[in-house]
Amino acid sequence: MTECSGQQPWEWPESHWRQLVAQIRAGTPLRPKQWKDGARCAIALSFDSDHETSELRDGGTSIGRLSAGERASRVGVPRILGILAKYGVRATFFVPAVAALLHEDEQRRIIAEGHEIGIHGWIHERNSLLPPEVERDLMMRSADTLEKITGVRPVGLRTPSWDFSPSTLKIEQEMGLAYDSSLMADEDCYELFCDGKPTGIVEVPVEWVRDDAVYFAMHRQQSLRPYTPPADVFDVFRREFEVAYEEGGLFQLTMHPHMTGYRSRIWILEEIIRLARSKGDVWFAPHCEIARWVYPARCVDTGPTENTSPGRVANR
Amino acid sequence: MTECSGQQPWEWPESHWRQLVAQIRAGTPLRPKQWKDGARCAIALSFDSDHETSELRDGGTSIGRLSAGERASRVGVPRILGILAKYGVRATFFVPAVAALLHEDEQRRIIAEGHEIGIHGWIHERNSLLPPEVERDLMMRSADTLEKITGVRPVGLRTPSWDFSPSTLKIEQEMGLAYDSSLMADEDCYELFCDGKPTGIVEVPVEWVRDDAVYFAMHRQQSLRPYTPPADVFDVFRREFEVAYEEGGLFQLTMHPHMTGYRSRIWILEEIIRLARSKGDVWFAPHCEIARWVYPARCVDTGPTENTSPGRVANR
Amino acid sequence: MTECSGQQPWEWPESHWRQLVAQIRAGTPLRPKQWKDGARCAIALSFDSDHETSELRDGGTSIGRLSAGERASRVGVPRILGILAKYGVRATFFVPAVAALLHEDEQRRIIAEGHEIGIHGWIHERNSLLPPEVERDLMMRSADTLEKITGVRPVGLRTPSWDFSPSTLKIEQEMGLAYDSSLMADEDCYELFCDGKPTGIVEVPVEWVRDDAVYFAMHRQQSLRPYTPPADVFDVFRREFEVAYEEGGLFQLTMHPHMTGYRSRIWILEEIIRLARSKGDVWFAPHCEIARWVYPARCVDTGPTENTSPGRVANR
Amino acid sequence: MTECSGQQPWEWPESHWRQLVAQIRAGTPLRPKQWKDGARCAIALSFDSDHETSELRDGGTSIGRLSAGERASRVGVPRILGILAKYGVRATFFVPAVAALLHEDEQRRIIAEGHEIGIHGWIHERNSLLPPEVERDLMMRSADTLEKITGVRPVGLRTPSWDFSPSTLKIEQEMGLAYDSSLMADEDCYELFCDGKPTGIVEVPVEWVRDDAVYFAMHRQQSLRPYTPPADVFDVFRREFEVAYEEGGLFQLTMHPHMTGYRSRIWILEEIIRLARSKGDVWFAPHCEIARWVYPARCVDTGPTENTSPGRVANR
Repeated sequence: MTECSGQQPWEWPESHWRQLVAQIRAGTPLRPKQWKDGARCAIALSFDSDHETSELRDGGTSIGRLSAGERASRVGVPRILGILAKYGVRATFFVPAVAALLHEDEQRRIIAEGHEIGIHGWIHERNSLLPPEVERDLMMRSADTLEKITGVRPVGLRTPSWDFSPSTLKIEQEMGLAYDSSLMADEDCYELFCDGKPTGIVEVPVEWVRDDAVYFAMHRQQSLRPYTPPADVFDVFRREFEVAYEEGGLFQLTMHPHMTGYRSRIWILEEIIRLARSKGDVWFAPHCEIARWVYPARCVDTGPTENTSPGRVANR
Repeated sequence: MTECSGQQPWEWPESHWRQLVAQIRAGTPLRPKQWKDGARCAIALSFDSDHETSELRDGGTSIGRLSAGERASRVGVPRILGILAKYGVRATFFVPAVAALLHEDEQRRIIAEGHEIGIHGWIHERNSLLPPEVERDLMMRSADTLEKITGVRPVGLRTPSWDFSPSTLKIEQEMGLAYDSSLMADEDCYELFCDGKPTGIVEVPVEWVRDDAVYFAMHRQQSLRPYTPPADVFDVFRREFEVAYEEGGLFQLTMHPHMTGYRSRIWILEEIIRLARSKGDVWFAPHCEIARWVYPARCVDTGPTENTSPGRVANR
Repeated sequence: MTECSGQQPWEWPESHWRQLVAQIRAGTPLRPKQWKDGARCAIALSFDSDHETSELRDGGTSIGRLSAGERASRVGVPRILGILAKYGVRATFFVPAVAALLHEDEQRRIIAEGHEIGIHGWIHERNSLLPPEVERDLMMRSADTLEKITGVRPVGLRTPSWDFSPSTLKIEQEMGLAYDSSLMADEDCYELFCDGKPTGIVEVPVEWVRDDAVYFAMHRQQSLRPYTPPADVFDVFRREFEVAYEEGGLFQLTMHPHMTGYRSRIWILEEIIRLARSKGDVWFAPHCEIARWVYPARCVDTGPTENTSPGRVANR
Repeated sequence: MTECSGQQPWEWPESHWRQLVAQIRAGTPLRPKQWKDGARCAIALSFDSDHETSELRDGGTSIGRLSAGERASRVGVPRILGILAKYGVRATFFVPAVAALLHEDEQRRIIAEGHEIGIHGWIHERNSLLPPEVERDLMMRSADTLEKITGVRPVGLRTPSWDFSPSTLKIEQEMGLAYDSSLMADEDCYELFCDGKPTGIVEVPVEWVRDDAVYFAMHRQQSLRPYTPPADVFDVFRREFEVAYEEGGLFQLTMHPHMTGYRSRIWILEEIIRLARSKGDVWFAPHCEIARWVYPARCVDTGPTENTSPGRVANR
């Protein structure tokens, strides 16, 4: 990277901003001709089980916020698992290692009920604040911790707070991960490129607009408040889904047990599932299966062989 | 507590974050097999009468905010008491000692009309900023002040701003309180555990989602604004109640005379009461009676003996 | 005032917080047995014509914000005056002296069309940041400026940003003003008390909940955004009015030409007027006439003699 | 400009605040007697293609925000162009030079499909933070860059973040631009005056209320969140349009590919177009044609001669 210290962005040479942009870039959109079993639309539901780590990563001094983290595990996760079981839907939970260690049985239940668990950092730390070797060490230990608890090695990463550092992708490559789910260069999956070169890692893209925390986060010392009514949050998710269905694309959704696990909000998850089910030809799948379907070459030995080779198309 | 000064949360040894989490923890959920008189659902309405202390605790320099505090007492509390009387509903008011001293008749009227008054700090100070001995002294004096004004010794505490310090629970134990209402590890009541040991103190849990201030707070120097329309706030409370009713659990609500005491918002309280009443089998009760019902052993001599011993179950 | 420098609010002696609260206090509610011509409800509409002073008082460096101030005068005020004329409604405009000097014809038109102009500071400065003698000088000069432009001496004050200082009331007394409209200790008018003594000055109380800026303010460098939809702002105002009508009280509303003067918001004003008109027995009046009606003794020589002496009652 | 350093705004001499206000001022409203082809209302849609520059101008360290910028180009612009093509509507895209250099084909497609591209700064820098000579240099280079890529010399400027500096207008004059679109002194077009003198430059005024970013911006480190539901944003735009149509004025709208380019929001653009189309007599036009129509003298040689000379009226 060219050095531009002390320069204002409008003073940068072209080479500098081109390098900044080129660090991580999106390859061809990976929208398959059809989804599994001929489905028209794929639905990737995810739940970030931050639990107590939301507060611990900020120092752990607020007992009130720690208690809210405990509720996410006591009340939120069981409520979410109940809905998923009721409709036979499999999903992905991204779990910081510390949250997994505090709630080991919860993680084993999630795996036992057919869901995926992905990496979500050690204690919900922000990667862009870490030295590269610390980020690498924490990510390695997080994967080991999750595997030790559940018996299943995670194949995907969602960076805490979607805070993707310049080192993250290289670490993902070194770990042989199948996918990342932290970036938002498209609505469909795409292959991540690093400094112009393909990496073989699939991005299952997220978006703030499809994240319950955007509308529901509450932080007393900050000005964040859950100002958007639940029915309007549902309306946003519904519109995102309806167009994804129309386009034959991917509908990816991020929720949090400590946000959507409430009595007044859990219906949003259920209604989205009911709405999608009512279409008939949708495929609910954990993120790892979505990544495998759109980019099958990568994942031959990390899961059961798929019967059909869907190929990849870049039609939009 | 292990010392970890200077360390970042991701550098902490496991013992440290485990200790932080273990300080205050939730015991078994205290959802009774049935509520009093066979009711299916219990409703605990609370009103935090902060009045002028919202401004005083910040220095007391804003005459405008002090006038808003005066209105809470002149207009807000009478309007709320009128609604409660109209429907024969008893509730709990949490009152800072300074607010009680500024409005002594108001507190006596509240007690005379059958409601409970709980501790809410001295001047709405934040406990986590206080040395332990100061927190203890203020809480003791607050209880004495409320008792002196009303003739009734409070048996429960809601920490101002729900700001529960590492010392709070020990002080509550020393004072022999029956319950706390500041934490949020569940939607049902639970017994508070301190460093892994039961304390005999019941938590009647609060939640931001069931707090009018979250949606309605206005602070000119901060960016807080009442952006959520009243009808949508009602919708959140309604959804919280409907599922509590369905589950046979507790519906706890926190309101403020200086928030909900307005002409454009008081209907929310009335409609929630009407909605709950329309079900037939609900039990409105002050927080102290809720705590006593779910954990009867504790409170044998602090109230009238209950006819039935409901037992406790941990079914969810 | 007792000195408590260096003390935290929870350390203050009782005398100190009692003095803080007693500085300005509300006397008996001034809700008349009936309003003029037997009306059941009084409606006091007000418009704060801050125009360019919103930006000037912050330094005047943003040309964009200055242009928004110009629009308030070019587009906002004429649109508002058009609505008021269409329905024959008289109201009060509070105008900083600098805004009046920048738009002299506008002020003359406002007076010519039967409305009131009240004091609103010199350049929308914040009183609580001023030395008392500066506040006094600016208020005197503001009154003189408005009188010089319009030929009518103002009899009421709304402090800019409702920022009422410990000196404001004494200055109002010295100037012989009939009313203030900056505080919020009630929804009905009341007499202002200073250190426990009546002042003869009527408060026509404001409230954030009845202020368009709360919902509509936009400031790029702050986090203020117009998040509340116009239809929901109307709903808040409507509910405030409906209960004021039911109670036979006062409905006071604060709007700003640079907020409500928009094509997408002006209908709120019109609908509120239409709704109130549809009741039949409402009285629209400038703030000065409201103050005179509820407290007639004060204003014998500052306006036409009223035919009826309504008396004052303190029923609520 | 008089020097008033160290003085508070309320201490300024009258000459100072008059000079501040007079720097840039609005001339006569330019609302034509009729719009092109006898249309009753003109509709100027604009899209600010900030893409990666939103993050680059802040230092370019967030890979997540850079990926969102990439999506604006991959997904947002094609979706917007698709809607515009479907309805045969031409519009204006304001593009920072760096965004244009990163996405050259996109700019050529925009021009090829009949739209206008206007200047939007070099890297979305804030003009009011720049020395005048730097602002001038960047603006010149931005115009050259856009012309080199597309073959068309831009004739209008929208300052990034609508941050208009005291130098901006003089630079626009020197460059011979036909219009600016950064200020908000009216809802109709007007001629910009500089220190009391006409400049021949037309303002096509913007407004926060007609800007999707106001309601939809998301910035994790700030408190900005998309709290307003899409259906309510549509309602605001709809109301702005309906009154513009009724008045026979201009309806100008600002959108961003990285805001409105989403599946859940793109319908807002389509519905606004459908609604306007349903009236029959509306004229959709790029900003440059709007400016030319309301002020034809200026632009004789920069475009095809108009058949009719609409004249200018100042009726409101």
